[in-house]
Amino acid sequence: MYKRIHNFSAGPAVLPEEVLLEVQEEMLDYRGHGLSVMEMSHRSAPFQEIIDNAVAAVKRIMDLADDYEVLFLQGGASTQFYMIPLNLCPDGEVANYINTGSWAGKALKEAQKMGKKMHVAASSEDKEFTYIPRDFVLSDNPAYLHITTNNTIRGTEYKFDPETGDIPLIADMSSNFMSKPVNFRKYALIYAGAQKNIGPAGVTVVIIRKDIIPRINSGLPTMMSYNTHIEKGSMFNTPPCFAIYVTGKVLKWIENQGGLKAIEQNNIRKAKCIYDILDNSRFYRGTVVREDRSMMNIPFRLPTEELEKKFISESTAQGMLNLKGHRSVGGCRASLYNSLPLKSAQVLAEFMLDFEKKNR
Amino acid sequence: MYKRIHNFSAGPAVLPEEVLLEVQEEMLDYRGHGLSVMEMSHRSAPFQEIIDNAVAAVKRIMDLADDYEVLFLQGGASTQFYMIPLNLCPDGEVANYINTGSWAGKALKEAQKMGKKMHVAASSEDKEFTYIPRDFVLSDNPAYLHITTNNTIRGTEYKFDPETGDIPLIADMSSNFMSKPVNFRKYALIYAGAQKNIGPAGVTVVIIRKDIIPRINSGLPTMMSYNTHIEKGSMFNTPPCFAIYVTGKVLKWIENQGGLKAIEQNNIRKAKCIYDILDNSRFYRGTVVREDRSMMNIPFRLPTEELEKKFISESTAQGMLNLKGHRSVGGCRASLYNSLPLKSAQVLAEFMLDFEKKNR
Repeated sequence: MYKRIHNFSAGPAVLPEEVLLEVQEEMLDYRGHGLSVMEMSHRSAPFQEIIDNAVAAVKRIMDLADDYEVLFLQGGASTQFYMIPLNLCPDGEVANYINTGSWAGKALKEAQKMGKKMHVAASSEDKEFTYIPRDFVLSDNPAYLHITTNNTIRGTEYKFDPETGDIPLIADMSSNFMSKPVNFRKYALIYAGAQKNIGPAGVTVVIIRKDIIPRINSGLPTMMSYNTHIEKGSMFNTPPCFAIYVTGKVLKWIENQGGLKAIEQNNIRKAKCIYDILDNSRFYRGTVVREDRSMMNIPFRLPTEELEKKFISESTAQGMLNLKGHRSVGGCRASLYNSLPLKSAQVLAEFMLDFEKKNR
Repeated sequence: MYKRIHNFSAGPAVLPEEVLLEVQEEMLDYRGHGLSVMEMSHRSAPFQEIIDNAVAAVKRIMDLADDYEVLFLQGGASTQFYMIPLNLCPDGEVANYINTGSWAGKALKEAQKMGKKMHVAASSEDKEFTYIPRDFVLSDNPAYLHITTNNTIRGTEYKFDPETGDIPLIADMSSNFMSKPVNFRKYALIYAGAQKNIGPAGVTVVIIRKDIIPRINSGLPTMMSYNTHIEKGSMFNTPPCFAIYVTGKVLKWIENQGGLKAIEQNNIRKAKCIYDILDNSRFYRGTVVREDRSMMNIPFRLPTEELEKKFISESTAQGMLNLKGHRSVGGCRASLYNSLPLKSAQVLAEFMLDFEKKNR
């Protein structure tokens, strides 16, 4: 038998137990092939099937047709912060960003650092990133508008898709990717590190609408050009095979759950367990405006930092891991990604009520 | 029970069965922590221990002290082809390369593509890369000399360390990394994709001698600067945690085998099984000069392409996988990396003798 804790990590995060059991089962002998997926040539038929199935599942789940390319790349969202302006902001145009917190800030700083013209089209920095700006003003000659659809540290989330007309809309969806139905077709480029909602660390999904491919700058370093990876189906060089394989299993799990509508219903139920407490408590305090709060990452404060320490230490002792807020903002944070079982949210809610009773 | 084939893949490649069994055992509950390594926050104590242990093992195995930094990065050797000239070839200096085949060629082309001054200090292209050049001529103002210590496609291997004096020597060791004792201290930078000799795909080991750190160019894209990863101990962003974890287990396995001296003895025995046949046969023909032939990748030809097809199809049917030569050169190739059991080499040797008897 094995023990499983309740894992509220902001990422890498909990995976479905069914997926881990399958991975375990196939570890030494993948479906009678006599080797682990980690030992497979990426040019072999079984691995080609694994990556093809993962690409097809992404398209089915997101309701995308052949007008999109789906890539599995390395280097995390942080590498995309560089690749996006490098590929998609030509000289004479301006990279536009909405600044909604730490990761959005890192993305825009990277464009700036490269010497690209960068424009902040909107920002919620005035209120410590506790809300999502509704309005934005694009620069002249905008190359694109970049948003961060969920802000892992601050706990805010886009619940609408900004209207940019003909201007390509680009989104870092790392921390709410595939957590709910979205009109993905409004986006020219979507990227997400797998390690929050759809798999383990080490692979980044990048989804590119084909109409922007002609806009990709030429003469780029081979590994930094989207064209390299599009032309070679993510296999210009050896891809992160095992991470793609596990991600493929999580995608299948999402489909088995009933797709994004069903996933969203589960996520709403889980988030409600915690938000109901925050809304009805004078002990716990949510930190963001109600209408923009995230279904994925719920930061909250207790009356004192001392109580927060006690809360984290007692919850850890009771098998609830990673409830400490990000070091840059302090407090507590519960991350409730797709694969977190409802039971975990319920156990946390009970613990919160109990802790309040004993400590208020 | 599970079936295991004999895996002669050029990479991703066979892993020690002991390692896979441990990974399997720990899949749902890593050492009583109640979660998989794939589900761990990279900021958690158990993961910090995993990466610290892996760094320490690399240093122990290679006999390096604290004058070296050990990084675990993403993007494969192909990303290093870009990062090396970007970081280590300042304006006014010249990136020097020895061209020993396909991967060496890709490395030097990347420097050229970036607009760096590039100089081919030696090449074995005149004889289709079937040997390792002994002499080389550096350019004026050389930034470094880059070599490829083992050529996976052609099957040649450096058995000496080029003398470069004060000029930094840089080596892509992807396909013979940790396969034998080397005077690693002669190298200023060593890199290797893990997926051949020390782990699964998705992580690249980069080892940097600290005295060249002041030479790293400034103002680089965050993820492309070695300084970023040195300062943050490979954790500027989420690292490929699971690939590092499995690599750590292979490193431990190498130490348990007795370190690089013992590993080399095993590799010599395995390679001898095949080379003895090539040396004593008029049927099979090795393709590279004897003194430079690789202990890792053994390309060979049969009398006709038809016989080669038959050889590959019959060996596959008998549970020996991936004996087809690289598509760019044809023929057959057996890759005998560290983790390939001696038994696999023996089984292949028997098959080769038997096939010769039946088909000559």
